[in-house]
Amino acid sequence: MVIVQQIPISRWVFCQLLQEDRAISDTSDTAAAREQGADFMPRFDAAGLLTAIAQDATSGEVLMVAFMDREALDATRRTGLAHFHSRSRGRLWMKGETSGHVLHVETILVDCDQDALVLKVRPAGPACHTGERGCFYRALDGDGLTRLDG
Amino acid sequence: MVIVQQIPISRWVFCQLLQEDRAISDTSDTAAAREQGADFMPRFDAAGLLTAIAQDATSGEVLMVAFMDREALDATRRTGLAHFHSRSRGRLWMKGETSGHVLHVETILVDCDQDALVLKVRPAGPACHTGERGCFYRALDGDGLTRLDG
Repeated sequence: MVIVQQIPISRWVFCQLLQEDRAISDTSDTAAAREQGADFMPRFDAAGLLTAIAQDATSGEVLMVAFMDREALDATRRTGLAHFHSRSRGRLWMKGETSGHVLHVETILVDCDQDALVLKVRPAGPACHTGERGCFYRALDGDGLTRLDG
Repeated sequence: MVIVQQIPISRWVFCQLLQEDRAISDTSDTAAAREQGADFMPRFDAAGLLTAIAQDATSGEVLMVAFMDREALDATRRTGLAHFHSRSRGRLWMKGETSGHVLHVETILVDCDQDALVLKVRPAGPACHTGERGCFYRALDGDGLTRLDG
């Protein structure tokens, strides 16, 4: 009876350790499946986020970069409109929810280890809250910035 | 004598509170300077990181996305080769330090609130560790992934 009890407990402890290890770092099998497989296995970081880059589907311009949690990813896939997770406000937001300048998502690309996405988008207006077409409207020039249209 | 001591202490406390507030959220003046100004004022997140997107300077393809701390940013600017901060290994790494597939940085674009960069690069070889030209070689297709070249 002692032996019968000991086996399940030690196995349970072993499985717990194994699961913890897997949660911290992929096994080589999981990493290979993520990199080469056909399964979508998004890898959210410690804060529960993926990096999401919105790129103009026509011009190739990188319009903006933001973060997605599971909720934002699901909302984006369900509606076809880009949703993100605001780290500062701690909530879901749809790009353009106030301005109307939504981003229609045509394609979602997934990177090798599935912790980042490129959204190929058709913007309904300026993608930047400043009114610029995209957020990257300045270049580093020496120690300062110059406008790309300047 | 009591009064003389009280003034510096209360001023010190006030300044500490003011500094803490500024560290948490920009004042409107600072936010405006970041968005519209010509000063490079990179805004590192709570973990001390910027998001950095490497984009092929010729084709416009987004090759990879990673993170930069101050050290990686300085190394990139000093050498003209893309350096990042590895979150998993907790250290500086130069893209291509093992493979030789470095990224020559032609231009660094800075976003509106200066917490993200686009590096316009000329890659010396495949940018992805898998041997692919870039990391975004698959698209989400229903609930699975399809290769872009497949």
